[in-house]
Amino acid sequence: MEFSVTILGSNSAVPAHDRHQTSQIVTIGSELLMVDCGEATQIQLQRYKVKSSRINHIFISHLHGDHYLGLMGVISTFHLNKRQAPLTIYGPRGLDEIITTQLRYGNTRLCYPLQFVPTNPEQQSLLLDTKRFEAFSFPLQHRLPCTGFYFREKERPRNLIKEKLLENKLSIEAINTLKKGKDFMDSKGHVIYAADDFAYPRQPRRKYAFCSDTKFDPDLIQYIRGVDLLYHEATFMETELDRAIDTYHCTAKQAATIALEADVKKLLLGHYSSRYAELDALHMEAESVFTNSHLSIEGETYSI
Amino acid sequence: MEFSVTILGSNSAVPAHDRHQTSQIVTIGSELLMVDCGEATQIQLQRYKVKSSRINHIFISHLHGDHYLGLMGVISTFHLNKRQAPLTIYGPRGLDEIITTQLRYGNTRLCYPLQFVPTNPEQQSLLLDTKRFEAFSFPLQHRLPCTGFYFREKERPRNLIKEKLLENKLSIEAINTLKKGKDFMDSKGHVIYAADDFAYPRQPRRKYAFCSDTKFDPDLIQYIRGVDLLYHEATFMETELDRAIDTYHCTAKQAATIALEADVKKLLLGHYSSRYAELDALHMEAESVFTNSHLSIEGETYSI
Repeated sequence: MEFSVTILGSNSAVPAHDRHQTSQIVTIGSELLMVDCGEATQIQLQRYKVKSSRINHIFISHLHGDHYLGLMGVISTFHLNKRQAPLTIYGPRGLDEIITTQLRYGNTRLCYPLQFVPTNPEQQSLLLDTKRFEAFSFPLQHRLPCTGFYFREKERPRNLIKEKLLENKLSIEAINTLKKGKDFMDSKGHVIYAADDFAYPRQPRRKYAFCSDTKFDPDLIQYIRGVDLLYHEATFMETELDRAIDTYHCTAKQAATIALEADVKKLLLGHYSSRYAELDALHMEAESVFTNSHLSIEGETYSI
Repeated sequence: MEFSVTILGSNSAVPAHDRHQTSQIVTIGSELLMVDCGEATQIQLQRYKVKSSRINHIFISHLHGDHYLGLMGVISTFHLNKRQAPLTIYGPRGLDEIITTQLRYGNTRLCYPLQFVPTNPEQQSLLLDTKRFEAFSFPLQHRLPCTGFYFREKERPRNLIKEKLLENKLSIEAINTLKKGKDFMDSKGHVIYAADDFAYPRQPRRKYAFCSDTKFDPDLIQYIRGVDLLYHEATFMETELDRAIDTYHCTAKQAATIALEADVKKLLLGHYSSRYAELDALHMEAESVFTNSHLSIEGETYSI
């Protein structure tokens, strides 16, 4: 099953250097989840040929404009495209009023159901529980109520070893039991076929965490420990540490420190300040602390 | 004095074919006036190197997203750039609530004064009266309360004929009177120097009218008669006349008919439907009715 993240926007505050405000698409199987939605996100969706009709869930971290000002455009364009599938938006309280105020003055009655789920900036919360994955929000410390998001795939069926199945003539019931990773027993509770003999080991559940805007905050490690991929804002470099502290943002070194201490597999940096036309130095600063650090680049897709 | 319009966005409804939602900059002398502000206008301002700090007035025709969704981004970026000069926004009632709701949830206290002036969709109204020009709104018939905008330069001083001035030794008082286009008289009321002898004829006042979204409406001719340049929406071609009528939009032929009947000097077409990747046929449809019809092209500046 595909599990990946595609970057639509990588800059902070304002568009600059042909970089856009924060937005990304998390693909899990056939589901596309939008995470944050800065201005011009709908143009980025077109540019990178994202199948927007498959977006049913949009997660907004906080109400600074560079993280949500593209949302009304996406909602409107779905309407103009005569979308029918429900759309659910998860975000801070107030976002619903921002949306409904604009729909009201635009005299727009959407042709699809729009549901709003407020996020809780105080504690980790389960937002979405599907057959394939779960999505959580967790608290981030920023200048406004803000949450990160955590996506975890569910346990996948174990892949069966074909040769073993051919050697033994198994019933459908037995095969289904083994696929779930359980031993198949007869009615008396005797083990007939042991799962470990017939199925490959279970693949670990993959996890992705998104930390949009946050001060340097080791408290958030509890929510992201051990993820396969961590996106963490890296607005500044250490030379601008004072400014990072003032604005509740992080340096590349701080983002890498969080990645290291949280024992994540891979770090994706983003939310770059417009002062950096080139990003190599920022990248190197992170790599010096956490080797598997990468720049997020618009249009690129990162497998999880 | 420069008097021109620069096109930032020319498409209707959604961005397509690398065309953007409606926005334009009217330049009058050193003043830049923004007219409508679709999504990503701030990116277009960057792309075409518009000196945004010189924008002190923004005019919004109506509250369909493709005409105003870029406004919060422009307001925010002015704030982030530490603007200090006041900004005045003219637009339909409700736009002020849309702005203040977002500023409130964003916990943003702008570092410059923002004034909102509601437009009146029922009658022509003077919005702005400066030394150099006046700006009016006038009613348009669309699916929402909507206005067009009309910009008229003020009478310019008459240019004096240098040779004549050298022949006669005129006082400063006499020169200033002649410049205003008046004859200079002595204290007894005798004409000493006739303005028509010392000054070139007065240049006619130039006028620009903007009709964003409107059904075909000959009633609006009263507001735009004889302008030097008319921007008029031409969303569709005649083959889509039914759709134009349904959606309160115009065809290229209808826009040209308005231009012809209003006796304007030049017509600029815009607000193209996304169904037209190429615009030549739409242009020809207008030209067949009104010869001096032109496509508005993003990034181009049209002198008035």
